[in-house]
Amino acid sequence: MTALSGAALLDRIDALAAITAEPGRLTRLYLTPEHRRASDLVAGWMREAGMAVAEDAVGNVIGRYEGEAPRGPALLLGSHLDTVRDAGKYDGMLGVVSAIAVVAELNRQGRRLPFAVEVVGFADEEGTRFQSTLIGSRAVAGTFDPAVLDARDADGVTLADAMRAFGLDPAAIPTAARRPQDVLAYAELHIEQGPVLESLGQPVGVVTAIAGATRMAVTVTGTAGHAGTVPMALRRDALAAAAEMVLAVEETAAGRDRLVGTVGRIEAMPGATNVIPGRVRFTIDLRADTDPVRAERQAALLERLHAIAERRGVTIATEVLHDSPAVACHPALMAQFAAAAKAEGLDAPELPSGAGHDAMALTPLAPVAMLFVRCERGISHNPAESVTAEDAEAGARVLFRFVETFTDVTP
Amino acid sequence: MTALSGAALLDRIDALAAITAEPGRLTRLYLTPEHRRASDLVAGWMREAGMAVAEDAVGNVIGRYEGEAPRGPALLLGSHLDTVRDAGKYDGMLGVVSAIAVVAELNRQGRRLPFAVEVVGFADEEGTRFQSTLIGSRAVAGTFDPAVLDARDADGVTLADAMRAFGLDPAAIPTAARRPQDVLAYAELHIEQGPVLESLGQPVGVVTAIAGATRMAVTVTGTAGHAGTVPMALRRDALAAAAEMVLAVEETAAGRDRLVGTVGRIEAMPGATNVIPGRVRFTIDLRADTDPVRAERQAALLERLHAIAERRGVTIATEVLHDSPAVACHPALMAQFAAAAKAEGLDAPELPSGAGHDAMALTPLAPVAMLFVRCERGISHNPAESVTAEDAEAGARVLFRFVETFTDVTP
Repeated sequence: MTALSGAALLDRIDALAAITAEPGRLTRLYLTPEHRRASDLVAGWMREAGMAVAEDAVGNVIGRYEGEAPRGPALLLGSHLDTVRDAGKYDGMLGVVSAIAVVAELNRQGRRLPFAVEVVGFADEEGTRFQSTLIGSRAVAGTFDPAVLDARDADGVTLADAMRAFGLDPAAIPTAARRPQDVLAYAELHIEQGPVLESLGQPVGVVTAIAGATRMAVTVTGTAGHAGTVPMALRRDALAAAAEMVLAVEETAAGRDRLVGTVGRIEAMPGATNVIPGRVRFTIDLRADTDPVRAERQAALLERLHAIAERRGVTIATEVLHDSPAVACHPALMAQFAAAAKAEGLDAPELPSGAGHDAMALTPLAPVAMLFVRCERGISHNPAESVTAEDAEAGARVLFRFVETFTDVTP
Repeated sequence: MTALSGAALLDRIDALAAITAEPGRLTRLYLTPEHRRASDLVAGWMREAGMAVAEDAVGNVIGRYEGEAPRGPALLLGSHLDTVRDAGKYDGMLGVVSAIAVVAELNRQGRRLPFAVEVVGFADEEGTRFQSTLIGSRAVAGTFDPAVLDARDADGVTLADAMRAFGLDPAAIPTAARRPQDVLAYAELHIEQGPVLESLGQPVGVVTAIAGATRMAVTVTGTAGHAGTVPMALRRDALAAAAEMVLAVEETAAGRDRLVGTVGRIEAMPGATNVIPGRVRFTIDLRADTDPVRAERQAALLERLHAIAERRGVTIATEVLHDSPAVACHPALMAQFAAAAKAEGLDAPELPSGAGHDAMALTPLAPVAMLFVRCERGISHNPAESVTAEDAEAGARVLFRFVETFTDVTP
């Protein structure tokens, strides 16, 4: 199966990574000249793999490999072609080049499946330019929010104007939406962006769900005071209270599979070495692959935070900044991915995705599934992002097995 | 004893507070026109109290009330006349006006003591203008560091030039130093700047020592990572480790009299809601009224921090930013203050000073003692600083008793 060679996959990854707005580092944003060049390169590979290629109304590049009967419903594969600033070269791209390789292999073998296979290179997943993520996959799912057309980039250009400058018509966006009866499922290969597969010694894993997330801001108010003159027993130290709360966040998530809790920001005020902090602000990021678990743990955590505050004579105020539900992968598709891995001699473990993906936006349209590929030390959104040729090939082979044995799970 | 009236003391406090560089808030810096006006006002009060007045080579204003035999050694009283920016009006000033009132009362009674009494209004204790504290009292003690003459204020003016503009000669600073044989002791009345006396319901307290202080910077290095993709068990979260360390600082000081530990600053990097902190910096401020206790607790704390780091797989680096020894008040003078308080019907509790004072600089010259006066909620270095007329009067009465019954403790 030469089309699935790991070395060939990484060659294409390198070719895509060379298309950047910033010499020396990979930055490829939506609706830029680099977007155009990347789409053109990918479109060429798609045609070479026997696909008919089109660009939809938001700039997604879509290749279609017909099934045994023309114009039938399709299995969608894909990922995104845009990047963050100073990005790694596998995030998104590995899914697109692997999907193209799978079709190229079908084509090389002269095989048609009972259904069409489409590969989508989504135009905007990261949201780097307009601060609005998943524009490409939302348009395909029919959930694009027209209000986003007024969003402006750092230069003040609106999304609508940028689309026109790219040769797209904002009024035509609804035409990018696919009908559910035309889409059997969406399957996405993506690098894990975490260290779980590496820690388990496994090249690929089957995603259970894209975790739901709650982000909160917590403000602890105690009493500021002179670090030298206020005895310990008379203090209401906002930072000591917050420190207990940080540990409560950790303990709330610890020992639970598929639940993580993080305090990423903290600020003590007034913030002088010799002043007892009177106020502390910190954030909480809580994620779980099922919403009931997240809701239960969030409630338990808030109860603990209030108990800590009460015991220490400080007050807390909490504000939910963000709340997104978990998106479950389809159990039958997970089983098909597991069987495909097994056929390749791999014991693909199940794991949740803590990061968001295009698959998330596509759930209203079709059942979704994801295959994770191991990456080095979990590093992502960073030039140090790394995947071995062996793992890339393992991922593509499993995706090929998944596609050739795919069974419709829609009712 | 009308010269010791609380209302009269607070009238003088208000008169001094009216001399400010900033309308609406009290800011009176060293070697400014406001310094000159405050010294003139205080000099007038000193003369009115029967004192001969002089300004020394660094701008301290000094009043001398002769004893039974002229030109004999003196008991020094005093505090400072400079302020921080947007200051309270009792810090420093209450000590000066109370000392003048004590002499005024002696003068009113027509009494001479077996020793002279001098009142010093120190010109610079806070160090607000040149970032070098205790210039006034260091000059009197003979420990002024000539290197400080090159220090510049925010406008780039050197201390030496500011002295000349004020009419002082930097070369004459050594003449401000007093000979030990001419000084029997130094006694300073000061607001507590802490909440201990208020919590004990006592208007005055006897200071045991000016606490020694250690300031450290701690850097904790773990591994940054995506808040959604790294399971709890695979994390080396620098902030969770630092949170344990903050609590260790608190626990190290808790339950110990006269020992305080504070984390006043903390910063988590990279500092994003959805990123596990890979590095955290925080400060530790540790103070105790004896150096062996501070050294022992500091060593115990460092051992705990290293144990936390080791258990969590993070590293720590600690740097000592500042280390100042404790300055003990003279036990016999403490006893004389306690007896003076008892004669006024007050049960003056002993307590350490967590903040620095002019008394600290004078220890090389003479035995020192301090009397603290209760202030509202421990607030200081803030316009909300507040002392009642009753407490001001109690302080002045105790100081008067101390002076009239003063017994030389020098060998």
